[in-house]
Amino acid sequence: MKQIEIFDSTLRDGAQGEGISFSVQDKLAIVRSLDKLGIKYIEAGNPGSNPKDLEFFEAAKGLTLKNASLVAFGSTRRKDIKAEDDKNLNALLGAGTATVAVFGKCWRLHVDEIINTTAEENSAMIYDTCKFLNDNGKHVIFDAEHFFDGYKDDRDFALGALKCAVDGGAECLALCDTNGAAYPDEIYSAVKDVCQSFPNVKIGIHTHNDRGMAVANSIMAVNAGAAHVQGTYLGYGERCGNANLSTIIPDLTLTGKYCCIPQEMLKSVTLTAREIGEISNTSIKRGEPFVGISAFAHKAGMHADGVLKLPRSFEHVEPETFGNTRRFLMSEISGRGAVLERIKKIDPTIEKNSRETAQILDALKKMEQQGYQYEGADSSLEMLIRRNLGKYKPFFELKNYKIISGRPCENDECSATATVKITVNDKDQLMVAEGNGPISAMDNALRRALEVFYPSLKNMHLIDYKVRVMDPKSATAATVRVLITSSDGKNVWSTVGVSADVVEASRIALTESIEYHLIQSKE
Amino acid sequence: MKQIEIFDSTLRDGAQGEGISFSVQDKLAIVRSLDKLGIKYIEAGNPGSNPKDLEFFEAAKGLTLKNASLVAFGSTRRKDIKAEDDKNLNALLGAGTATVAVFGKCWRLHVDEIINTTAEENSAMIYDTCKFLNDNGKHVIFDAEHFFDGYKDDRDFALGALKCAVDGGAECLALCDTNGAAYPDEIYSAVKDVCQSFPNVKIGIHTHNDRGMAVANSIMAVNAGAAHVQGTYLGYGERCGNANLSTIIPDLTLTGKYCCIPQEMLKSVTLTAREIGEISNTSIKRGEPFVGISAFAHKAGMHADGVLKLPRSFEHVEPETFGNTRRFLMSEISGRGAVLERIKKIDPTIEKNSRETAQILDALKKMEQQGYQYEGADSSLEMLIRRNLGKYKPFFELKNYKIISGRPCENDECSATATVKITVNDKDQLMVAEGNGPISAMDNALRRALEVFYPSLKNMHLIDYKVRVMDPKSATAATVRVLITSSDGKNVWSTVGVSADVVEASRIALTESIEYHLIQSKE
Repeated sequence: MKQIEIFDSTLRDGAQGEGISFSVQDKLAIVRSLDKLGIKYIEAGNPGSNPKDLEFFEAAKGLTLKNASLVAFGSTRRKDIKAEDDKNLNALLGAGTATVAVFGKCWRLHVDEIINTTAEENSAMIYDTCKFLNDNGKHVIFDAEHFFDGYKDDRDFALGALKCAVDGGAECLALCDTNGAAYPDEIYSAVKDVCQSFPNVKIGIHTHNDRGMAVANSIMAVNAGAAHVQGTYLGYGERCGNANLSTIIPDLTLTGKYCCIPQEMLKSVTLTAREIGEISNTSIKRGEPFVGISAFAHKAGMHADGVLKLPRSFEHVEPETFGNTRRFLMSEISGRGAVLERIKKIDPTIEKNSRETAQILDALKKMEQQGYQYEGADSSLEMLIRRNLGKYKPFFELKNYKIISGRPCENDECSATATVKITVNDKDQLMVAEGNGPISAMDNALRRALEVFYPSLKNMHLIDYKVRVMDPKSATAATVRVLITSSDGKNVWSTVGVSADVVEASRIALTESIEYHLIQSKE
Repeated sequence: MKQIEIFDSTLRDGAQGEGISFSVQDKLAIVRSLDKLGIKYIEAGNPGSNPKDLEFFEAAKGLTLKNASLVAFGSTRRKDIKAEDDKNLNALLGAGTATVAVFGKCWRLHVDEIINTTAEENSAMIYDTCKFLNDNGKHVIFDAEHFFDGYKDDRDFALGALKCAVDGGAECLALCDTNGAAYPDEIYSAVKDVCQSFPNVKIGIHTHNDRGMAVANSIMAVNAGAAHVQGTYLGYGERCGNANLSTIIPDLTLTGKYCCIPQEMLKSVTLTAREIGEISNTSIKRGEPFVGISAFAHKAGMHADGVLKLPRSFEHVEPETFGNTRRFLMSEISGRGAVLERIKKIDPTIEKNSRETAQILDALKKMEQQGYQYEGADSSLEMLIRRNLGKYKPFFELKNYKIISGRPCENDECSATATVKITVNDKDQLMVAEGNGPISAMDNALRRALEVFYPSLKNMHLIDYKVRVMDPKSATAATVRVLITSSDGKNVWSTVGVSADVVEASRIALTESIEYHLIQSKE
């Protein structure tokens, strides 16, 4: 099996993504997470252009890493000066990493129109930079910016730029599809050509997703001979993002030809995604390959039945291989065979013909008639099953809630005040809270009342809230379904509530979410 | 340029996606949207397995489509019965579409282990089904389920299944990567082989995204000779979703070798994505290729500078080609040519350089920053323009509203009581009403108060009500956008309201809707 080096740029190229912003603490946490997974290189910032990155590299000097090497990133020297006089290159040395990555221009258009210099000076900029860094004891990765556009435009120019880097001492040539315009077949033949032209240098690939093909392009490059893959975990990055390493690592592994992280770490691919998603404060797309919550979710009845007979009939890989889990979604399209599977997870003694199975199916049908739908709300389904198995004891009783709201309000942010009265172990607790609108006020009051008894609820927060109007023609009196996704930083779970009153629907979903959390904490 | 047929399965395979659930009205709206874009085939449901789909096909008989043909989907006949006795096949005929798509097994594993029959019976099932449908006057597309897994396992078996379909009269063989496990090079060589084996039949491709390569695999299949591409708009679908047509259509177009929708419709690719996203109540990923809000957003200073000098230095295509716009994340400048068109409808004397145009663009930008979006709310846009042209006089003033709600309630249907105080021509009017939840109570009270002065409001009613949570991570304190569609029996109009309080957002949209109606009645 051929070893492929993984080079993660979540902290550098990933940080260019809209809505992504890392503190120094966030960066340290992500480095620890990637190191644990067995990533070889972690590109962590551009010390020349970003003072926060310099601060990070200072802080990182105290880190002990098991698998990864940190990499500092920068540009080739500015035109018409000496490398040793370039303050960005000196900042790069100051980062104190053993390896540095520098990018240089490989597309004639950029030399002529963007940096406005001669081909000769561009060559010298690349050569001088690599040599200067190499002479200062650094391992140098050369990021061949716009390589594929440059190659299509003028092969000799693009290969010439690579030669300058190699002559200057670069150990790896990372070919970049900077604008994300290349097609898999183009990538394959260009990488093959470069591998043949530079048989003694490590060739790498760095792709962007502007045409939705960054992952496939990376795989094709490896097939053509690349042994170093750059990307970001979860695909963060400018515009449409970079190649997604949480997909590429499983994809390369599943070919059976390549190996990129230690075998025993493969099952941590999903957990790493969830950790990085949390730290970045972004939600992972439900259908994200391998790591998304829906990646192994079966809805069509025929598919669910097939998977129950033989998983590989409708699954390309066992979900656990990369740390994810299979789910059967309950919906009008899915058969009922799948429900039994869920029941058995809670009580393995229950059989298809057990009285409880019939009772649960009946309860499910009644709830669906009211407008409940469990496909996005696994945890509510589990609660329904538990209730019907007698494996559920309420953690509290909600005696009542009352909300006063309206406009104009004294305080622009708080148009509503809610009171709740709950009982836990025969102890009543009244609580009042404000909120912007009745739902937020009720949510605040209920949580505060419960936190008196269950302090662990402070660790739980909502990460997604959805409202779906079910019979839109009934307009403001229509039944709504509220879907809530919650997290305690490690686990993620979803619950549902239905009512013609959006406040009540939210209250139901919220209550289920809280009770689910309390059950998990207890078990 | 080679013409590639686009076959959209958003309403069938897309509906298998977790969290996707279409009403008949939603489906009709999506059909209209795809037809307008110039999609050739719209697969709209499985009448045999889903009664709601049958209802849709009944309703669709009244549609007049300009470009698209509707397709009904089903399975090959059950084993060991005659095709004419299969109720699902008869339901397929009942859908009344000129073209039908049927899937059959092409992987020996499924024949042996899932449907438990012989290879001979599987062949007969495929042949009989295609022949029965063909004899009944249908154009038949054969979906070769698990084709690529089957081909890898036993080429002769997989090609044999295709031959049965062709012998039965199938006009198109859509090769499916049902489990999403295939790699681009495997797809290329298998499709090439099939094209050579069946030189007189149209070959299609149907991929899934479980390894993040559905788009690239579709492109590679077209390069190998496929002339029919199946996918879903925005990539909805089971597990990790189907091949995303909003990426594939631009990708194929940009090769310069293929053409798939009319040239003049290319600029509607983004608008169609937003329409379908709204109808499906899902948000489009920011970085979604071509159509995402960040797809042409530049954050890195060097990239922004490059784009300002020469767009193609850091953009793979002009964003407007597919109807999107470029954004600079630090200094947002948006061109609004289209707004002028709307302004001129209300006041034809206004020009591009008029003071009012700048003022309206400015107001629009401010509203958008608050979360307003006018794509689905034309009438609200008109109201905004009128206000800025001085062509608007309020019909009433809302002094205040107050709502008391809570549970348990005396009356199960009415958990809330609202009061409003309005002023019309210096006359105050107080009104109280009940409702199921605060929104309904407020709606009832406001309408009753206004009907005292404007009896024509009795003819107006809401026909659609949608709630969209905009920053789901803020959970119950998130900003919501409420979209209301109203009718007076003759006209239909839509308005929008935004607030962190769902009651207030509803109140804003409702007020705009009422005022729009009153303006129309007066004019």
